[in-house]
Amino acid sequence: MSDDGARIGHLIQLLARLPGLGPRSARRAALHLVKKRDSLLVPLLKALEGVAETVAPCTICGNYDTINPCAICADPERQPGLLCVVAEVGDLWALERGGSFPGRYHVLGGLLSPLDGIGPEDLGLDRLTARCQSERVEEVILALPATVDGQTTAHVIAKRLGGVGTTVSTLAQGVPVGGELDYLDDGTLSTALKARRPVL
Amino acid sequence: MSDDGARIGHLIQLLARLPGLGPRSARRAALHLVKKRDSLLVPLLKALEGVAETVAPCTICGNYDTINPCAICADPERQPGLLCVVAEVGDLWALERGGSFPGRYHVLGGLLSPLDGIGPEDLGLDRLTARCQSERVEEVILALPATVDGQTTAHVIAKRLGGVGTTVSTLAQGVPVGGELDYLDDGTLSTALKARRPVL
Repeated sequence: MSDDGARIGHLIQLLARLPGLGPRSARRAALHLVKKRDSLLVPLLKALEGVAETVAPCTICGNYDTINPCAICADPERQPGLLCVVAEVGDLWALERGGSFPGRYHVLGGLLSPLDGIGPEDLGLDRLTARCQSERVEEVILALPATVDGQTTAHVIAKRLGGVGTTVSTLAQGVPVGGELDYLDDGTLSTALKARRPVL
Repeated sequence: MSDDGARIGHLIQLLARLPGLGPRSARRAALHLVKKRDSLLVPLLKALEGVAETVAPCTICGNYDTINPCAICADPERQPGLLCVVAEVGDLWALERGGSFPGRYHVLGGLLSPLDGIGPEDLGLDRLTARCQSERVEEVILALPATVDGQTTAHVIAKRLGGVGTTVSTLAQGVPVGGELDYLDDGTLSTALKARRPVL
């Protein structure tokens, strides 16, 4: 790359900030884009433009969509009394790909983390409590990661919702579908053993 | 992702076509872009726009740059008699990062590959021969990959340049700098052994 390749260099730097791309793969990606100018670079440019102009967070649940409220919040088929709390929009998408959840969502936008200085007000937990009351939510499902921060957040939310009168549940923990016992960590195995279900 | 998330879905599809990104990492990248709209999405958009508008292949050597001829071809400090032939622009960048090559380049844009139907005319080998004659090139360095296609291409170019009167050389093969012998493949080791150099 020459000194005048500063434009390409700037593009490489920006691409390297995407998750999953390091400096070397960002360079390869930039080269690929310049090479496939009409078939990839220009369409990608248009797609980014479209997303930048139209996609915004839903003011009710925090999902990203081109309409506000988002398609899920606006869907009359969704059960109004069932609310699933997730940490990030990516978790919402993962649950939607499953396609079996009939309720609506609430995206926290993160997890409580005293070390990083993220407290209840940063996640808008008051807004969640208010939403549960105003929408008369019957059950809140806490679909938060099974990490220390995730479980702390789940605990704090459950405590806050105690006074509102909604049922609070969390995702089941156990053996993943298709999972081989031999490859599972000890924690998951012992949790699955403790939470065993009768079959007969 | 809702049905109206088609714009984001399209962006994910395009991102997944970049080398190094699969469908899952493309989804993460798209989410990251939407999240960091002002600090990443918009700058990336501008950078892509800039590259799409200004970067084009150099008509002399095939390098990508914002000027034509490119900064390397236009640099009067570069030795005119020394020409390095590479397969792709990425290889040129790799050599430039090394910073020790004082000559100019010629990018083939690929390698001879009878199986993929890529012949001498696709790589513009006649153009290379003509360039060597018109620019009075004294030495051509073939910096082509040490693969079957790379070595076939090197052999064909060397044969063609035989009548032009330039010296033709290739990169040295051997142990990489910092390389542990234990981790090297047998081919490299035996090549390095055959091409051993006297030290005393």
